[in-house]
Amino acid sequence: MAIHHALSGELIDIRPLGAAIETTRTATLYKTQHIEVFRMVLLAGKQMPEHHVAGEFTIQCLEGSVEFSIGTTRDIMGPGSLKCLAGGVPHSLVAIEDSSVLVTLLLHEA
Amino acid sequence: MAIHHALSGELIDIRPLGAAIETTRTATLYKTQHIEVFRMVLLAGKQMPEHHVAGEFTIQCLEGSVEFSIGTTRDIMGPGSLKCLAGGVPHSLVAIEDSSVLVTLLLHEA
Repeated sequence: MAIHHALSGELIDIRPLGAAIETTRTATLYKTQHIEVFRMVLLAGKQMPEHHVAGEFTIQCLEGSVEFSIGTTRDIMGPGSLKCLAGGVPHSLVAIEDSSVLVTLLLHEA
Repeated sequence: MAIHHALSGELIDIRPLGAAIETTRTATLYKTQHIEVFRMVLLAGKQMPEHHVAGEFTIQCLEGSVEFSIGTTRDIMGPGSLKCLAGGVPHSLVAIEDSSVLVTLLLHEA
């Protein structure tokens, strides 16, 4: 099945998935030449090992809780937590509970 | 008083303001050469007349509800509603309830 990406101006539902989180996959919600917006689902215990991305990005916890680490600095992110990161910063994530996060990633920086 | 902008990686609280919404102003949370993230407070009845911005942006309702219009297309955005817009699209907003929204705006597009 083709994945639906929203069009400019289209209403996108990013409310908590609740019980559906167990069967929902990470999905891109919107993508252009300059920006990609995706909801990442991380079930409890799931890790994203240290990595970095070229572009700046924001990450917002929509539900659950995740531990977000930059080097030795660790923060717990729950609903209503947001971080904005410069490009190229190594970081890692681990889900403490079943969690979904919204990532807004800048693609082609000048 | 100087307005504090978050640093890269800093934890930012975007939970609903609740009763404090009446005394909270729109504020930039994070700003770089490429991106500006701000929380806009719109009390009930407040309008933002039709306008456009050069860069692409996303807008997410954090609390309350706003009517977001693009031409004759109107959508009600409540908590967990997101829209991603191309640059240059004329749009307008009116707050139905006391509301706060998170805007992520791309500044210098290639």
